[in-house]
Amino acid sequence: MSEETRQRILTKGAELIHRQGYNNTGIKQILDAAQVPKGSFYFYFGSKEDFGLAVVEYHEALFRDRVMQILIQGEGGPLTRLRAFFEYFRAFFAEAGYCLGCPIGNLAQEMGDLSPIFQQRLEKSMRGLTRVISRVLAEAGGLGELPEGLDPGETAMFMVEAWHGALARMKVAKNAEPLDVCHKMLFERLLG
Amino acid sequence: MSEETRQRILTKGAELIHRQGYNNTGIKQILDAAQVPKGSFYFYFGSKEDFGLAVVEYHEALFRDRVMQILIQGEGGPLTRLRAFFEYFRAFFAEAGYCLGCPIGNLAQEMGDLSPIFQQRLEKSMRGLTRVISRVLAEAGGLGELPEGLDPGETAMFMVEAWHGALARMKVAKNAEPLDVCHKMLFERLLG
Repeated sequence: MSEETRQRILTKGAELIHRQGYNNTGIKQILDAAQVPKGSFYFYFGSKEDFGLAVVEYHEALFRDRVMQILIQGEGGPLTRLRAFFEYFRAFFAEAGYCLGCPIGNLAQEMGDLSPIFQQRLEKSMRGLTRVISRVLAEAGGLGELPEGLDPGETAMFMVEAWHGALARMKVAKNAEPLDVCHKMLFERLLG
Repeated sequence: MSEETRQRILTKGAELIHRQGYNNTGIKQILDAAQVPKGSFYFYFGSKEDFGLAVVEYHEALFRDRVMQILIQGEGGPLTRLRAFFEYFRAFFAEAGYCLGCPIGNLAQEMGDLSPIFQQRLEKSMRGLTRVISRVLAEAGGLGELPEGLDPGETAMFMVEAWHGALARMKVAKNAEPLDVCHKMLFERLLG
């Protein structure tokens, strides 16, 4: 048992689940990809559900790095940083061939009705992301940069939702249009 | 072999896939739910993928009825009908306990990367829905009811995307807030 092995199972499993879904990814496939002997999964994780929750945490940690780097410590005013944040992900998906989508959004759609434990965990995750964006919008509001009457909390929720929807559309369109239209509507019409 | 049996398999299968996903639903489970003897599936459908495509068509037909009833033949001007259309689905999901989501949007997210046949079929389906909404928006534009510079096609795409994202969020929030925020942002801010 080593922390390095646990981490390898987690990284490979998170990647597979991101690409093909939670229910569509078997424990055997994860162990094969991580090159870990069959049977050792339960030394590291209590159940597949426990593993799934660790995958949510894994993505949250990666995501927090981007939040810190671009949204909190990035250059420019709040709306400039927010725009850069969305543009970072737009570039990520262009690079990925318009595949994958948001790992948290995917799991919300897949698992929201199937497991109360996942549902609550993912709700918390989405709430956290919304809160971060809400704070940046409130900062913009304080500088008089938000259109009148636009509530930072509601606007943040809407921006996250709209982006998640655009990602699902992107997965069938296999081009940038859904993301570009979303970006334009959010930044030029709603916040513009 | 009867058309009635085929229809029963389709209805039950569409329901199961809507609730729990395509890959998470086995043929045996569908046949059990439809009370059809094991083994008869392949008399009706060439493969599970063929069945999945028939499920997409099944949902499209149901959806077209709503489009006709509310969006095309409903009372009032174009924006009134569009609002009523979104409100119909808001009421549907409240009734369903904030579960399920859009069957086409769910499949787009789940299958967009996994099967080119599904991907193309779902892209067509999403394009069709967007086109219908785009026409209603163009009608509003012709009456001078659209904010200046708002393109009907892009706005329709964005409205569908934002709503799909709100539905994924709803599945983990288990309340109406994501849908209400989306409705408000679309109708009071974007189109308001």
